[in-house]
Amino acid sequence: MKVVAVFIVALQLAIGVEVDVKTTISGFVVTLDGITIMEQSEMSPMLAVGAGNRDVMEFRGNFHIKDEVVSRIPLRRSSVTKIDDTWQIVLQESGSSNEYQTIIELENDASSLFVTVTVQAQHPINRMWVRFKAEPSERVYGGGEQFSYLNLRGRAYPIWTREQGVGRNESTITTFFAHQREGAGGAYHTTYFPQPSFVSSRHYFCHLLESAPSAFDFSHEDYHEVEILKTEVGFKLASGSSIQETVEKLTGLLGRQPELPDWIYSGAILGVQGGTDKMISHLTDAQEAGVKVSGLWIQDWVGKKVTSFGSRLYWNWVWDEKWYPNLKTVMRDLKEKDIRVFAYINPHIINTGSLFNDADKKGYFIKNQEGTTYLQDFGEYFCGTVDFTNPEAYNWYKGVIKTNMIDLGFGGWMADFSEYTPVDGVFHSGIPGEEAHNLYPVLWAQCNREAVEEAGQLGEILYWMRSGFSGTGKHAVVMWAGDQNVDFSYSDGLPSAITGALSMGMSGMGLTHFDVGGYTTFPPMVRTPELFLRSAEAAIFTPVLRTHEGNMPQANWQFYSSPGTMCRFARLTQLFTTLRPYMKEAVRQNAESGTPVQRPLFFNYENDPVTLDIQYQYMLGDDLLVAPVHQPQQTSWSLYLPDDDWVFVWDGKNYKGLSDVTVDAPIGKPPAFYRKGSKWTPLFEKLSGIMASCGDETIPPHIPLDQKIVQLVMSQVAPSSSQNQEVKDEL
Amino acid sequence: MKVVAVFIVALQLAIGVEVDVKTTISGFVVTLDGITIMEQSEMSPMLAVGAGNRDVMEFRGNFHIKDEVVSRIPLRRSSVTKIDDTWQIVLQESGSSNEYQTIIELENDASSLFVTVTVQAQHPINRMWVRFKAEPSERVYGGGEQFSYLNLRGRAYPIWTREQGVGRNESTITTFFAHQREGAGGAYHTTYFPQPSFVSSRHYFCHLLESAPSAFDFSHEDYHEVEILKTEVGFKLASGSSIQETVEKLTGLLGRQPELPDWIYSGAILGVQGGTDKMISHLTDAQEAGVKVSGLWIQDWVGKKVTSFGSRLYWNWVWDEKWYPNLKTVMRDLKEKDIRVFAYINPHIINTGSLFNDADKKGYFIKNQEGTTYLQDFGEYFCGTVDFTNPEAYNWYKGVIKTNMIDLGFGGWMADFSEYTPVDGVFHSGIPGEEAHNLYPVLWAQCNREAVEEAGQLGEILYWMRSGFSGTGKHAVVMWAGDQNVDFSYSDGLPSAITGALSMGMSGMGLTHFDVGGYTTFPPMVRTPELFLRSAEAAIFTPVLRTHEGNMPQANWQFYSSPGTMCRFARLTQLFTTLRPYMKEAVRQNAESGTPVQRPLFFNYENDPVTLDIQYQYMLGDDLLVAPVHQPQQTSWSLYLPDDDWVFVWDGKNYKGLSDVTVDAPIGKPPAFYRKGSKWTPLFEKLSGIMASCGDETIPPHIPLDQKIVQLVMSQVAPSSSQNQEVKDEL
Repeated sequence: MKVVAVFIVALQLAIGVEVDVKTTISGFVVTLDGITIMEQSEMSPMLAVGAGNRDVMEFRGNFHIKDEVVSRIPLRRSSVTKIDDTWQIVLQESGSSNEYQTIIELENDASSLFVTVTVQAQHPINRMWVRFKAEPSERVYGGGEQFSYLNLRGRAYPIWTREQGVGRNESTITTFFAHQREGAGGAYHTTYFPQPSFVSSRHYFCHLLESAPSAFDFSHEDYHEVEILKTEVGFKLASGSSIQETVEKLTGLLGRQPELPDWIYSGAILGVQGGTDKMISHLTDAQEAGVKVSGLWIQDWVGKKVTSFGSRLYWNWVWDEKWYPNLKTVMRDLKEKDIRVFAYINPHIINTGSLFNDADKKGYFIKNQEGTTYLQDFGEYFCGTVDFTNPEAYNWYKGVIKTNMIDLGFGGWMADFSEYTPVDGVFHSGIPGEEAHNLYPVLWAQCNREAVEEAGQLGEILYWMRSGFSGTGKHAVVMWAGDQNVDFSYSDGLPSAITGALSMGMSGMGLTHFDVGGYTTFPPMVRTPELFLRSAEAAIFTPVLRTHEGNMPQANWQFYSSPGTMCRFARLTQLFTTLRPYMKEAVRQNAESGTPVQRPLFFNYENDPVTLDIQYQYMLGDDLLVAPVHQPQQTSWSLYLPDDDWVFVWDGKNYKGLSDVTVDAPIGKPPAFYRKGSKWTPLFEKLSGIMASCGDETIPPHIPLDQKIVQLVMSQVAPSSSQNQEVKDEL
Repeated sequence: MKVVAVFIVALQLAIGVEVDVKTTISGFVVTLDGITIMEQSEMSPMLAVGAGNRDVMEFRGNFHIKDEVVSRIPLRRSSVTKIDDTWQIVLQESGSSNEYQTIIELENDASSLFVTVTVQAQHPINRMWVRFKAEPSERVYGGGEQFSYLNLRGRAYPIWTREQGVGRNESTITTFFAHQREGAGGAYHTTYFPQPSFVSSRHYFCHLLESAPSAFDFSHEDYHEVEILKTEVGFKLASGSSIQETVEKLTGLLGRQPELPDWIYSGAILGVQGGTDKMISHLTDAQEAGVKVSGLWIQDWVGKKVTSFGSRLYWNWVWDEKWYPNLKTVMRDLKEKDIRVFAYINPHIINTGSLFNDADKKGYFIKNQEGTTYLQDFGEYFCGTVDFTNPEAYNWYKGVIKTNMIDLGFGGWMADFSEYTPVDGVFHSGIPGEEAHNLYPVLWAQCNREAVEEAGQLGEILYWMRSGFSGTGKHAVVMWAGDQNVDFSYSDGLPSAITGALSMGMSGMGLTHFDVGGYTTFPPMVRTPELFLRSAEAAIFTPVLRTHEGNMPQANWQFYSSPGTMCRFARLTQLFTTLRPYMKEAVRQNAESGTPVQRPLFFNYENDPVTLDIQYQYMLGDDLLVAPVHQPQQTSWSLYLPDDDWVFVWDGKNYKGLSDVTVDAPIGKPPAFYRKGSKWTPLFEKLSGIMASCGDETIPPHIPLDQKIVQLVMSQVAPSSSQNQEVKDEL
């Protein structure tokens, strides 16, 4: 068989983007606004093509992917021509071979450089590797929501939406046990919201336009390598005068989030459950204790189903009138008091519920290879998953959202899941499962967005999502960080929520928040009073303050677990509401220019290179530097102040920047500094005056929990260290 | 740069080997004695060449290797010609490219087919991938000493000698903790003795003639793929009428082991320590208890050095006359009673000892990149490693063995280590470190062998080794299985020693044994009385019965730990000595034809396909089927009997084969059957008559050990499950 392979890399010249291609002895150099972005030579080719076999195994949102490369052919020879505004670079193999070509074309685009690579080959080729020039000291940020590292250099990041994993760090015992149970451990790169884009400290962004599986490898000194499992791909690149401006350009391309509803700043959304009376009694207790409340989130509005793991939400998205009697009336009354009630939904529908039959008959679910509804296993129950590539199904589900949630009077909902899309699923639009997988969260966001918009409620109703991909930034209105562990671990606990927010901001999603206290109880960890309060402290410096009872409410500490906790939490909600005008300003900046609400220090202090590597501090808006205490048993906290004059929020003391400082950090006083001379000084000064008299109850780091509950939790631990439990086969 | 790449695969036709090459539409098929061994087509090429970057990190014999492929070019086009006795097959890329070629030549060889592949390229090419034809149901055995799997299908095996690792199974908590401590966990393929060869159930062997890093991937249905980090390689292949005959041909190529000294069958070698008096008192106690003793092994003959881990052997290979006073005289006296004393040595020399200075001055050690002696870190002390590629150094060390051990009167020694050879070491012969690494154990074996031969003591002196590679089979006289854990785990405990012996037999090394009771105490495991006795039971069905006190003698159960244990062990030694004539016959078969002493059932019962997958039972010689109890707390044991008539050793009951059977298996009666009608029936019948009256002491599975010692062991455990100990970076 004769083989002809043609590679086309089209660089479309944007207005205002300066692209230049210079030939060298054995290759060429491409610059974008003077920044070298590609470099080719015979010894160091920038493109390779090849084939591989990919085997994807999925269990409850945890994907185990085996990938084997069978051919990888670097293209060593190049020739450059220019036709009108179009650069064409032809890449080929070396020697006498002319099987593979690359043509680079430059055309006008609104604000970016457009690169396309097309492979035409009779050979079994199914992927390519494209290298961008790197500098040793360069930092790279973004990649969607990355929980472990803000600077991505030194590691590779597969772009594949999935459960973030439990523990997310193979050197920890938590991840070890989680891997043993359902392969659920995760790693540094596992995330709900990957995005094939990065922002370089060299002031350019690079965004891959494909949803096919890809991986960004930043582990090399002199190049970044992007692997894409597709033979025709496009990139967009643009540069800015600073990192901030580069992010502005990226969000210009990807879309920005609108401003948040005004009511969000008036207090916490309390995650509660258990029926109408219980919901109201939680509200009354909280308000009596001084908690500022903006809403009540009842994820169990659909009722519960009993399984061997305990009771779980019943995934039939219809109000359970027995479980929540009078809910409609109660919601109307509460709204008059400016308290909203929030629901829960995801794109999966349980096969024993009323919604399922309707959708199944109409063929609205993703299908299996046999052409019938693909039933996904969620642990003792099975669901159909709405096929959003089918316009009828999409509209039908939008209708479910409108009728069953908006019309009922909810103020919003958690729009959960969407990472489980099976690669062997068959989709209405004909898109392959491997490409549909990453795209699905975007369609899910869009469906929610349109339901809200069509109901005329954008800016009033709030839905929060965890999963995403390129395009989520345009359709989602706010994210949350998913299921952190109820611990202080760097890779999956409180610190990881901070890193997640900052990397999200570097990916064009500037509004996010997290479950106060974390979500996942993985034995033997349980949420302590200390973790709850440290987490709440950090959460007041995010745009949305929301609690969650977690996956094991009784085993974990809650805002209502003791009067002392409630009282302290109340004060924190008062701090949050005091920040209202300042927070609104930061949210407005995000809507206008894509400058995220929580921003890495280098947004404001890029000239201070220390800031390039700081991932657990951030600027909230332009004037407030926050360094949440994210480790247990701390009474003081060390942090870095960049080059400016600073005032410590809690005692008004002045600090000079360009130095490490250590401050007192008792529970309730999260380290925060404002810029001296800020126009917001009067507001910041108010914060230290907000006191609470919480009685004699001290909050020790760990309060002993009910031993029976601890035993219950412990009984779920995976294999002990007993040699007899050794398994015969490797994982 | 213009590039020319030439690949030469020379298939040398052996006398008695029938090789045929038939062209097909887009390729060819190579058969060896009618067996298809290679298959080429444009869509499925049998050869790829390419380049990669390899990064080797080593810490105390545990290697962590990062390998990245940057090019992999399958050669799709082929043409076949025959010149005289020589087949030439030219392989090239497809299309118009002619950069790469393969020439297959067939020439006469004594007993095998010789394949060479040569790459000549101006491109940075440093490896190749060669595929051999596979059938889905084919089994593959060998690969050196493989501890986890006898049939290698379904997995890939790097060929790289190293510490076998602790736990050797990433799904176990032991391996998890061992990885945390010094990266020492290991995996299913980590071994002291890898060998780049395999024996197929399709009745041929394939042996790679290179010591450069390679990997054998048996995970594909229709091909085996061998990756070799070299651009010029050779293979040898031959077929047999059965697996047994195929192994005979493989050992014909690799070399076989001589028969063992006669004294080895007269009892156990007792591993003891602590000075002359203690050694003698152990002997006296043992003999008084009825233990048959062939020798005493004193690894501490060189004295000890105190480190923070406790006392360790002093690696200066000179008799410590203070620690072992009168040793020379005592040894002479003991030998008159047919008791030998054994020493310990390895190729590393401590830099504070007398031998070091001499060798260092003469430049006898492996050098570092700076040209001075490469000092290897063994944990609080440093050693030079003898450069056996330097003939002077080789002879000098042979002299050390002769003078310091043979002349002193030792009956043999453990010739330990040789897996730590650094890849960045500089060798006298100029061989690159990556190629020297696997070769080093062979040179170490050869040095021991020549010392013994030149002293005229082959067949009298015994040295036992753990590490090896192709050629070890020719130079070593007996192996031992290295450092099993003191547990029953499949991947690193007692069962793994059985698998190790059988895979070794499939690799041409038919004589091996193991430390009775295992060696490595990895907290919280300690050797129990049950493990000691079950392990000893299994060891009597190997050619050498030897105890080891382990790495933490006081924390572990020993043959001398209780009168009941000593008494039971004594009976086992009597069973061992009773087997003497039968064992000698099996050892003779190994020396003559390479049929290993412990042989997989399919050596005798290949027509019964069930035997192809049995890895914890074996034939000892031709007539005895052994199925050691290798799990704890068993009172009965289930096993498979192949197609024959069998007699249970302990009660004389008759069994029909082709079935699973369950037999009583109390401690002391390891399941063993002899073939009905065997000429050895009178000998086998004696076994059940060997009784011992061991008093009232029962041997429970676990006897509580001294709690202080248990605490000491436990204190060495790696990170607890506390969330606070979570580490920030992944391993």
